[in-house]
Amino acid sequence: MTTTLQDCRERDAQDPLRALRDLFTLPAGQIYLDGNSLGVAPKAAAARVAQVVQQEWAQDLITSWNKAGWVDLPLRLGNQFAPWLGARADEVVFTDTTSINLFKVLTAAARIAAEDGPARKKLLTERSNFPTDLYIAESICAQHGLQLVLLEPEEILGALDDDAAILLLTHVNYRTGAMHDMAKITAAAHARRILCIWDLCHSAGAVPVDLHAADADFAVGCGYKYLNGGPGAPAFVWAHPRVVNRCAQPLAGWFGHAAPFQFTPHYTPAEGIRRYLCGTQPIISLSALQCGLDVFSASEALGGMAALRAKSLALTDLFIALVESRCAGHGLELATPRAHEKRGSQVCLARAEGLGMDQGVAGQGSGAYAIVQALIARGVIGDFRQGDGGLGVHKDILRFGFTPLYVGFEDVWNAVEQLRQVLETGEWREARFHQRNIVT
Amino acid sequence: MTTTLQDCRERDAQDPLRALRDLFTLPAGQIYLDGNSLGVAPKAAAARVAQVVQQEWAQDLITSWNKAGWVDLPLRLGNQFAPWLGARADEVVFTDTTSINLFKVLTAAARIAAEDGPARKKLLTERSNFPTDLYIAESICAQHGLQLVLLEPEEILGALDDDAAILLLTHVNYRTGAMHDMAKITAAAHARRILCIWDLCHSAGAVPVDLHAADADFAVGCGYKYLNGGPGAPAFVWAHPRVVNRCAQPLAGWFGHAAPFQFTPHYTPAEGIRRYLCGTQPIISLSALQCGLDVFSASEALGGMAALRAKSLALTDLFIALVESRCAGHGLELATPRAHEKRGSQVCLARAEGLGMDQGVAGQGSGAYAIVQALIARGVIGDFRQGDGGLGVHKDILRFGFTPLYVGFEDVWNAVEQLRQVLETGEWREARFHQRNIVT
Repeated sequence: MTTTLQDCRERDAQDPLRALRDLFTLPAGQIYLDGNSLGVAPKAAAARVAQVVQQEWAQDLITSWNKAGWVDLPLRLGNQFAPWLGARADEVVFTDTTSINLFKVLTAAARIAAEDGPARKKLLTERSNFPTDLYIAESICAQHGLQLVLLEPEEILGALDDDAAILLLTHVNYRTGAMHDMAKITAAAHARRILCIWDLCHSAGAVPVDLHAADADFAVGCGYKYLNGGPGAPAFVWAHPRVVNRCAQPLAGWFGHAAPFQFTPHYTPAEGIRRYLCGTQPIISLSALQCGLDVFSASEALGGMAALRAKSLALTDLFIALVESRCAGHGLELATPRAHEKRGSQVCLARAEGLGMDQGVAGQGSGAYAIVQALIARGVIGDFRQGDGGLGVHKDILRFGFTPLYVGFEDVWNAVEQLRQVLETGEWREARFHQRNIVT
Repeated sequence: MTTTLQDCRERDAQDPLRALRDLFTLPAGQIYLDGNSLGVAPKAAAARVAQVVQQEWAQDLITSWNKAGWVDLPLRLGNQFAPWLGARADEVVFTDTTSINLFKVLTAAARIAAEDGPARKKLLTERSNFPTDLYIAESICAQHGLQLVLLEPEEILGALDDDAAILLLTHVNYRTGAMHDMAKITAAAHARRILCIWDLCHSAGAVPVDLHAADADFAVGCGYKYLNGGPGAPAFVWAHPRVVNRCAQPLAGWFGHAAPFQFTPHYTPAEGIRRYLCGTQPIISLSALQCGLDVFSASEALGGMAALRAKSLALTDLFIALVESRCAGHGLELATPRAHEKRGSQVCLARAEGLGMDQGVAGQGSGAYAIVQALIARGVIGDFRQGDGGLGVHKDILRFGFTPLYVGFEDVWNAVEQLRQVLETGEWREARFHQRNIVT
């Protein structure tokens, strides 16, 4: 039996999380399915940022380091969000960027590995990992004499051998939305004494994460995607208590010092996760991020992550079912795993080469870029990820993120309806939809 | 002849830069002499930040990467401020923190030095450098097998020998306000083939800086002090064209890639200073910073840095003269050089041990902390820096920053008058002024 628009409206009416949508400003006239690139703005952010600029900065100035708690903000936000990661008090800080935090934890892991198993020389990761992870890993390998090994997902378990020092994986793949079994892979890696680092950019706030249950070693993740922290919001970093104090990380700035304001000449790293801090943080951006985290705190009374996960799966199930029933015959195929336990909070549709006429792409192109552009022109915001960059996904991707905090079932129905019209009219073949932008 | 309050008011009335003061929100009822810790808020910042949050983020979302120019903001701000550093177009980016940027350039310098003179094993710096510089330098030395050599200012020129690879100096000392002769020291270092890195945290926007004229190799500096960019505003980094492309820096994130949005699996650093970018920047904070830079752009029509420097020296000269004439007999002595060419934009007064009763300080304490607290209670905001941390300054310091963009001559008169009263009443001896805060 086909789902109707009316069914979707009823599901929204019954959605226990529906009230959370009102905590956000949603872009006028759009269905925003790109929260996995940049989350929407919490309504509270404007007032919070105004308060930071006009009162805490402009009037209170340096006294705000104490009075407004700027000095502890990275740790305070870390503590606020820790339960959503399965982390404990004082184990998480929000600071710097994902790339920089990854550099810190990879260096720490390389140092620990050099102590515990100096013969181990491989850093394993996935070929289709997000590029910045690959770039940072490449830099770390060059610096520490390690060899970077790029794997297909199905090769990972088999590659866990006694030559491997570190396994770096992104929990949910940014292109396909495929989710790894963190606990299973970590256990397999630990059985071979390999350190496990998890990048949670596409899973924090979107799917259940339990770092302690999985017994991970380190984790990093993004503040501006599912956390709705604002453009370029500071990222987070976590280290398991058994490894956090084993070595200093190399970005040994004053905020990571045991006594940052005693201005001692030599570096003594703080105990615990504070040693992963470095320089002075961008307080205005960090304060905006808190508004994003506050929505997660508010969601706890409505069922928290269990409710968010149930809704996310319902949204993505519905999207898949509607695309398959209403957009058949246009060369789209599901690139995201159908199995719930392997799916993040996004759905990707693949389109093979030769079905379209994208410019600047070998052969005829897949048309995926143009279809995404035509959808955007109709107010449905998803994004395009190019296939075959040697990154392990060979088809062009139409990517749609479903943030259960603010996306509704009617949104899903309308998005698929617009996709159907884009495909049936063939309007995506118009030249204007093939113009490439710089980003994102 | 003693300067009077009336004289000071006349000097303010004649100040060609006076109009710039109106571009800032100054804290109500205060004389703010701590712009070298955190600059005040440009009035434009509130509206700019509101626009970023409410329009660029909340409404335009990912399209703002192109439409609002977020993607180029680090370079655009760098280009806007480059002339104030004696840098050229596309040579400066605002990104990350001073500590992190220092890590990048020190690593690059260590790599270049290893190629050009592998026998050179010393990294020279000043014992009284800002602690985070020392910490990062320590980390770099450990990583690259270098030896960190801490020098007194008068030892620097003599230490430039063939064992030295890198000289890292802060142009204006954060505690004493003493300024190095950048051109002379750089020339002496280059004569011995030593790479020169300058930290401009206390000089950018405060004193004339000409990196090309001095022929420096690398520079970093702060966005939240004299640049008035907001709490924790992103920092800047510059590299001379002869060194910028010689190696990749280790924080090899996607924004430093030659083609960040092609998502290629291997890292190819961008040509030029873009390779010093790493992850996604905190756009709200970065946008606020632009308001600070805009004031510098506005000051160009009023005489630019020449006028700012003339006023800065006039302010600090006046402060010194008034303290010496009106606050004599209370154990204060000038810790900032009297010679103009050796003075930054701050004045530090030293007070010897045993003159006061600060708690938690060996012996009787200097009372400097309590005097600063008593001044703050009267609305004169300076700060305290503790002596003898092994950092080369052995007396406690009362530090007063004079930002010529917004500090006036009447402010100087009033500040000294309050200092005089604090000293003559002896109110600073009250117990409440000896309570230590955490920061700053």
